[in-house]
Amino acid sequence: MNLFPSALDELVEKFASLPGIGFKSAQRLAFYILSLPEEEARSFAGAIITARENVRPCRVCQNLTDAEECAICRSTTRDEGVICVVASPKDVAAIERGHEYNGKYHVLHGVISPMNHIGPDDIKVKELVDRVAGGTVREVIMAMNPDTEGETTAKYISRLLKPFGVLVTRLAYGIPVGASLEFADDATLMRALEGRQEI
Amino acid sequence: MNLFPSALDELVEKFASLPGIGFKSAQRLAFYILSLPEEEARSFAGAIITARENVRPCRVCQNLTDAEECAICRSTTRDEGVICVVASPKDVAAIERGHEYNGKYHVLHGVISPMNHIGPDDIKVKELVDRVAGGTVREVIMAMNPDTEGETTAKYISRLLKPFGVLVTRLAYGIPVGASLEFADDATLMRALEGRQEI
Repeated sequence: MNLFPSALDELVEKFASLPGIGFKSAQRLAFYILSLPEEEARSFAGAIITARENVRPCRVCQNLTDAEECAICRSTTRDEGVICVVASPKDVAAIERGHEYNGKYHVLHGVISPMNHIGPDDIKVKELVDRVAGGTVREVIMAMNPDTEGETTAKYISRLLKPFGVLVTRLAYGIPVGASLEFADDATLMRALEGRQEI
Repeated sequence: MNLFPSALDELVEKFASLPGIGFKSAQRLAFYILSLPEEEARSFAGAIITARENVRPCRVCQNLTDAEECAICRSTTRDEGVICVVASPKDVAAIERGHEYNGKYHVLHGVISPMNHIGPDDIKVKELVDRVAGGTVREVIMAMNPDTEGETTAKYISRLLKPFGVLVTRLAYGIPVGASLEFADDATLMRALEGRQEI
């Protein structure tokens, strides 16, 4: 006997297909949707469709936008000579929170990961090379996560960009501000030592 | 400067309004929706609307159904004389998984919880009393969670049902099958001792 109506089963299935949502959570979310006023449930569904229809990658930097070009690329007060390369739009948000960086961005939408069958052609590397080939770029900052995949991607891209004569840098590795030496992992400590600076 | 397009912000907000989903998870889910083929995003939105429109409480037992009466209430092979009272449709599913119980159900959609301002009128108690008043019911089994709210609800309902002369029972408390005595909590052990049975 089918215990739940099929429309409920289907909604549970949809939620369970989202990353990080297991069957129990999916069930909880589906029940919650059923408990919403009909108007709110419709507005939830509408938000999904609107976002999917209107949000697209920026023509220049590939960050998410609802226009042809994103606000940062359209900005005339930001330095066009510097491009900060990140793996995801969330990383742009993280760097912008610091209110320090005044260059442009390039969002790869992923990192090279042979384990997950993601090669250079599966992320927005070609678009970056085209921008650099344009000629106005002086420096490209690699701001991928400091893990194997991030470093592989940074190295691969820096090799591609070398022929254009631009400066390729990466974020400094070291002790996080406010952290305690005692709890820093060995790799971070070694990197901090290697990158020591005169004071 | 608005970093993300507003349609994306709105979708993140919607996901963050779901129970148990924080801002970071909501962001992850919204990005995932954007990465879906448009057809799949539409089908997700459609599942929300279909479920919200078609799923309603069964006229008799209040369990979720897409018909007037749920499949269990329509069934003629199940004992109409026994009603198992549960807090949520998920509990019906849990009991049905055992393939032992052959009576009917009543879903309260909540438990009495003064802390959360949920009184007897906010859950489906009146509907249960009406069913019992109908006269065909011999036994009502309380199957709420064994916590303070569940027990309060069970006691409240049993007092309401007494005048109808039906047998009111509750699930046995005790050591879970397969569990180890050593790790059972005190309250469970005491309940198991009190409810000891001759072998």
